[in-house]
Amino acid sequence: MELTAGQYTLIYNAFSFAIAAMGAATLFLWLNRSSVAPQYRAAVTISGLVTAIAFYHYWRIFGSWREAYEVKDGVLTATGVAFNDAYRYVDWLLTVPLLLIELILVMRLPHGETGKKAIRLGFLAALMVILGYPGEVSSASSTRWMWWVASMIPFLIILWELASGLKASIANQPAGVRSLVDKARVLTIISWCFYPLVFIFPMIGFTGGTATTLVQVGYTIADLVAKAVFGILIYMIAVRKSEAEGWGVSSGEMAMAGAAD
Amino acid sequence: MELTAGQYTLIYNAFSFAIAAMGAATLFLWLNRSSVAPQYRAAVTISGLVTAIAFYHYWRIFGSWREAYEVKDGVLTATGVAFNDAYRYVDWLLTVPLLLIELILVMRLPHGETGKKAIRLGFLAALMVILGYPGEVSSASSTRWMWWVASMIPFLIILWELASGLKASIANQPAGVRSLVDKARVLTIISWCFYPLVFIFPMIGFTGGTATTLVQVGYTIADLVAKAVFGILIYMIAVRKSEAEGWGVSSGEMAMAGAAD
Repeated sequence: MELTAGQYTLIYNAFSFAIAAMGAATLFLWLNRSSVAPQYRAAVTISGLVTAIAFYHYWRIFGSWREAYEVKDGVLTATGVAFNDAYRYVDWLLTVPLLLIELILVMRLPHGETGKKAIRLGFLAALMVILGYPGEVSSASSTRWMWWVASMIPFLIILWELASGLKASIANQPAGVRSLVDKARVLTIISWCFYPLVFIFPMIGFTGGTATTLVQVGYTIADLVAKAVFGILIYMIAVRKSEAEGWGVSSGEMAMAGAAD
Repeated sequence: MELTAGQYTLIYNAFSFAIAAMGAATLFLWLNRSSVAPQYRAAVTISGLVTAIAFYHYWRIFGSWREAYEVKDGVLTATGVAFNDAYRYVDWLLTVPLLLIELILVMRLPHGETGKKAIRLGFLAALMVILGYPGEVSSASSTRWMWWVASMIPFLIILWELASGLKASIANQPAGVRSLVDKARVLTIISWCFYPLVFIFPMIGFTGGTATTLVQVGYTIADLVAKAVFGILIYMIAVRKSEAEGWGVSSGEMAMAGAAD
């Protein structure tokens, strides 16, 4: 048992923090849905869906972590029940395509482009997650590297699309939101790069408890940024774009704005 | 074991009280969201978010307290499972910046000021919580003092900002709510001062069970005032300001107010 009681507790608290933050983000997004124009509600709903799914999985991850170890009088012992790493991948399989759809929806690309882009990027995101899993559950460095490389292919295609493809569409956004949309794009790119980096920690010299801590806390921080912080940013873009398009918050104004269309 | 069975039960009941009060405050705030004008709903939503996050953490704190001790036939024994003090700090890391944002949002500062103030105060609040934690988990008085002093620096900057910076903005509030907004500001200052005071109880002569009781019950009372009572006050300000700005509760009146714009 290489994990120390301190490392165990740190990971434990990081998981609990993620439960609270994902739950709070979900409630915030869903409670504020009506304060954006109808055409942006799908983006905000899906943002909340992503954090809700993450809330569920962190609840499970936390429970699995509690079952896997026991701390008595400051001494940590493994119970023999394995910590279930698969929850993360199941989560990503659902949330990563949704995250890309969020971003595409809030940008309001020209008709026809949205669906095509969402399907292609969503498929690539799912492929990326599936290819990463066999590496994650392996303790052999060579196996980990092989699947990491395989997973990096769809990853880099998505990143390229975000970096270049979506950048071009930013010019078509209203002036007031251009920098905010660009921030969301850059936040996606940066937070996503965190994942393959965390993945390789156990392959570049970190071992035992240190590797476990880096991987678990690292993925948790990456998830918080990529899902909760990103979701709030999507919401802010939706609010700003609603305003730019003349949509007021009160339903009186909404009725008037609707009539003016 | 210095904690008595009576002290254990008192703390136990204080935690359960906090679960009930935080849950009730959350439901009250969210159920009444629609009775304030749309521009104040974000403040009320976030007030409910703060008590919801506190509800979650008191649930966990209560569970951890139950696991840490056992009372059988009036005799208290420690189970060897450590009580997790970190839940409070994880809670504060999320809720304290949100509390400041609540206050700033309900004041409706001039455009541009809100975001800047929220980010600066939010960052200082997070720093304050992070600097307090290493002291909280230490039993050495000198270590506790060191981190207390470090944490007091951002604390005093925030308090100064609330005392002077926000005071200036109060003159710009509608006449009917000025005193209510000032109450919220003073309540924030007073309830916040409670925390560093509770922190130093174990350093100024209180030991064993007495120190534990003072710290746990003290933080719980401080949390109830700073989050639930404060949240209700924010709601009352939002109601009063909605009225002052001609926003009625019924949607008929709302439509008329919209048409009059």
